[in-house]
Amino acid sequence: MKVITSPVEIQTVAQDFRAKQLTIGLVPTMGFFHNGHVALMKEAGRRADKVIVSLFVNPLQFGPSEDFDTYPHAFEKDCQIAEDAGVDILYTPNKKDMYSEEFATTIQVKGLTSGLCGGDRPGHFDGVTTVVGKLFNQTLPHIAVFGEKDFQQLAVIRQFVRDLDFPISIIGYPIVREANGLAMSSRNSYLKKDEMDAALCLSTAIRYAKNLVRKQQNIAVSDIEKKVADTLLKHSECTIDYIQIVHQNTLQNCTQISSDSILLIAVKINNRIRLIDNSKLTGG
Amino acid sequence: MKVITSPVEIQTVAQDFRAKQLTIGLVPTMGFFHNGHVALMKEAGRRADKVIVSLFVNPLQFGPSEDFDTYPHAFEKDCQIAEDAGVDILYTPNKKDMYSEEFATTIQVKGLTSGLCGGDRPGHFDGVTTVVGKLFNQTLPHIAVFGEKDFQQLAVIRQFVRDLDFPISIIGYPIVREANGLAMSSRNSYLKKDEMDAALCLSTAIRYAKNLVRKQQNIAVSDIEKKVADTLLKHSECTIDYIQIVHQNTLQNCTQISSDSILLIAVKINNRIRLIDNSKLTGG
Repeated sequence: MKVITSPVEIQTVAQDFRAKQLTIGLVPTMGFFHNGHVALMKEAGRRADKVIVSLFVNPLQFGPSEDFDTYPHAFEKDCQIAEDAGVDILYTPNKKDMYSEEFATTIQVKGLTSGLCGGDRPGHFDGVTTVVGKLFNQTLPHIAVFGEKDFQQLAVIRQFVRDLDFPISIIGYPIVREANGLAMSSRNSYLKKDEMDAALCLSTAIRYAKNLVRKQQNIAVSDIEKKVADTLLKHSECTIDYIQIVHQNTLQNCTQISSDSILLIAVKINNRIRLIDNSKLTGG
Repeated sequence: MKVITSPVEIQTVAQDFRAKQLTIGLVPTMGFFHNGHVALMKEAGRRADKVIVSLFVNPLQFGPSEDFDTYPHAFEKDCQIAEDAGVDILYTPNKKDMYSEEFATTIQVKGLTSGLCGGDRPGHFDGVTTVVGKLFNQTLPHIAVFGEKDFQQLAVIRQFVRDLDFPISIIGYPIVREANGLAMSSRNSYLKKDEMDAALCLSTAIRYAKNLVRKQQNIAVSDIEKKVADTLLKHSECTIDYIQIVHQNTLQNCTQISSDSILLIAVKINNRIRLIDNSKLTGG
């Protein structure tokens, strides 16, 4: 596996792959790899000849009171994990090369970005779409793989790729969970031992909601949201950012449950650690 | 010359050119071709194996009180001109295929877009950068050629291409003028016979400003701007949108004249026809 830090070099390498008719799969990440990342890397490897994983903690997508400065990192370990997952290139640009002092451009998606995480984290998705647009132009992938845990992010990325006609297939990959049900996330490393029970409230609430739907097909959306809230609030460490059941494409609130309905949850544990999770409510 | 209307088809054709190691030159236009366009097409032909000219009157870059509905068009004649100029593909997408009902994405450049034409035409440059980003992804050019008449537009395009790392060389091409000095523009077709004298005030004022600088190297910027204004206002048909002498890269006002200084002028003739022109003030 090769490690590349220069945007100019990665673009040259990508153009070289393309000149040789090799397909490129990109997995954009912020590092501190877990098995969720590994699953994305392997999926990219199944779908493309060459796998590029970008590792860049993107300042544009963090708010002023968020965890940019403390975001976990473990570069040596990440290199080993990526290499073991069959990654060809780990691309780790530095902040100065990504954003010059004169940098002045934003890719912005309206609508999909206004509620949910966009409501709690103003400017977050502008930062995501802008950096992902840059990474696409730097690495020139045929496909790019994103985790479904960041469900709204995936929808926003699909939208700007479609709107701006990027010649890239966007692949969503299902959430990878710990044995206890916790959705894998680099931010789980913030959890202290005695916070784990509270953190499990998200996956517990999701299982509970799916059971409700299974037992009572015509249950009102507001009933489910209310009962999920009750489940979460059993844990005093837990405050709710949002609980919403939305259509998977439009992210608009559902009026009734269907196979397109997604339950999206965001909570804070001890006002310190923001966790998100989601699931379809029917099937599987 | 082939005429293509489908974004999907042009992207396939562009990918096919690239697979054959052929370079692509793009000239984005709004049609109603004149010799200025022809010069851009021929420049693209000198620099790339295949020339794609896009012809799309982009609604996003017109304000509500502007001339979108009356913008001149002459498709048959445009086809002939493009073919004669050696263009390989004339790409004329329709509005519905460019902007679906769900379209929600903007590419926005801050700073460079705030004054000059951006001040007079709010949202104009967002429309330009967004459509040019789309055209880039649809036609996958190695180089793209733009006229220097739209000087601010060219600076804004260079900025977003650099910021978003599009792997495309942006080529600026000098203003092409009529024998009488008038900068060529599709909007010149709006001019009635008795408005031509007034329209010539821009190129006359530019020649006058260059003479001033030649004669008096340390002349104050404000003096030149004042004298240019006097020249323009000799024509009662003429109102001034702006007269500014700026640095060619930053578009910030110059404090003194140098080889980087550009005089930018925008006027309205009879409050109906907006014309722009520009020139360096030293050399040539």
